[in-house]
Amino acid sequence: MPATAPTAAMLAIGDELLSGRTKDRNIGHLADVLTLIGIDLKEVRIVPDDEPVIVEALNALRARYTYVFTSGGIGPTHDDITADAVGKAFGVAVDHDPQALELLTRHYTARKMEITDARKRMGRMPKGATMIANPVSVAPGFAIGNVFVMAGVPAIFQAMLDNVVPQLRTGAKMLSKTVHCPLGEGVIGGPLGEIQKANPEVVIGSYPKFLDGRFWTELVVRTRDVEALARVSAEVEAMVERLAAA
Amino acid sequence: MPATAPTAAMLAIGDELLSGRTKDRNIGHLADVLTLIGIDLKEVRIVPDDEPVIVEALNALRARYTYVFTSGGIGPTHDDITADAVGKAFGVAVDHDPQALELLTRHYTARKMEITDARKRMGRMPKGATMIANPVSVAPGFAIGNVFVMAGVPAIFQAMLDNVVPQLRTGAKMLSKTVHCPLGEGVIGGPLGEIQKANPEVVIGSYPKFLDGRFWTELVVRTRDVEALARVSAEVEAMVERLAAA
Repeated sequence: MPATAPTAAMLAIGDELLSGRTKDRNIGHLADVLTLIGIDLKEVRIVPDDEPVIVEALNALRARYTYVFTSGGIGPTHDDITADAVGKAFGVAVDHDPQALELLTRHYTARKMEITDARKRMGRMPKGATMIANPVSVAPGFAIGNVFVMAGVPAIFQAMLDNVVPQLRTGAKMLSKTVHCPLGEGVIGGPLGEIQKANPEVVIGSYPKFLDGRFWTELVVRTRDVEALARVSAEVEAMVERLAAA
Repeated sequence: MPATAPTAAMLAIGDELLSGRTKDRNIGHLADVLTLIGIDLKEVRIVPDDEPVIVEALNALRARYTYVFTSGGIGPTHDDITADAVGKAFGVAVDHDPQALELLTRHYTARKMEITDARKRMGRMPKGATMIANPVSVAPGFAIGNVFVMAGVPAIFQAMLDNVVPQLRTGAKMLSKTVHCPLGEGVIGGPLGEIQKANPEVVIGSYPKFLDGRFWTELVVRTRDVEALARVSAEVEAMVERLAAA
């Protein structure tokens, strides 16, 4: 058996995600990237810009999973409270980071822009945190303990995540094989359940699709074991052929 | 002051959302609908097809919010475990519901399709639950206590939600006004924070946008009070004009 894969959670922060004004695009991206590198994303929470709520969710998630990734709330305005909430969760002070301030000052000075108090706010981080570089717009994210604090703007979230990935302990990549099934779940549910029961070393997912008034199903066999993947997906294919012919 | 608005949480259930295979489309839809009818969506969690995890999340959310909406895991296959998990969370037995079974039997019989054990599974619900009609593909969702259990397929989730909405206690609609701001948050952060501090009866959101190498900002004033909305958004507009001219 391969060693246990590292696990992860995501905490997406922002009133705009809960009001519907902004449709999150970071959860799906993080899920794709973590699956590729063999880290199991186990839970996602979306919470508002509300400090006690963020603190409670972060403390629950960081105790439970190998890594926690946050998005949102690290900009320069009054509703950007993620750094303070993370500091409170870890019980450490939050202050301007000299290195981050220098980066920001250099960036704005070169553009003949004033380094306002609001802009300086983006250099604040909890004591003991290290910067996550932001190649898009300079203002950094930060890592503290097993928590990676990143921006909510998708282009910046993605760029920060690319900088974080090389630091992560990755697991054996989860392998998957998809079997297209022209039948609905009502037909295959019973026999598919039997195959799952007989092969507990793989996880078989069944995803109903509905198009033009008809159901079809995408069946996905997942495991970290190459041999089991081939064997069980062949069983699933044989089942689909048998039932489609019936 | 208007009475406190009802609150809500969403629990999206499914391994496929966490692996990246499926990109959720129900969270944003629910957020839009709830905002329209004056219910505050306060938290979203995405969890895998794992019974103890679903039970724990559901119990946390249903204790805390007026309503909980779930998506996913109510189909006919072995990985559809939502009904059992909800039953366990409420401490009640889960069994075939006579009315749901009759609907399913009539539906499949009319189509000369066999009512397999897998299809019968879709008529299972916790004792005391009431059906949520599914005009798309018949297999119903259900409501129990303050929890509404709905399908994960977006067309069906949306249809079920339409059937649930008339049963909900709605609040005064949250009003909002958006002020377009051609400046980045670094410029407006300080003055905007002052306006927020002076007007605690509204919530001012600041949403950074990044396009073609430039930042701009969408500022949103939110309140249930018509007068405050007009007054504070005028203040925000004046601030933007002043800073843009500077």
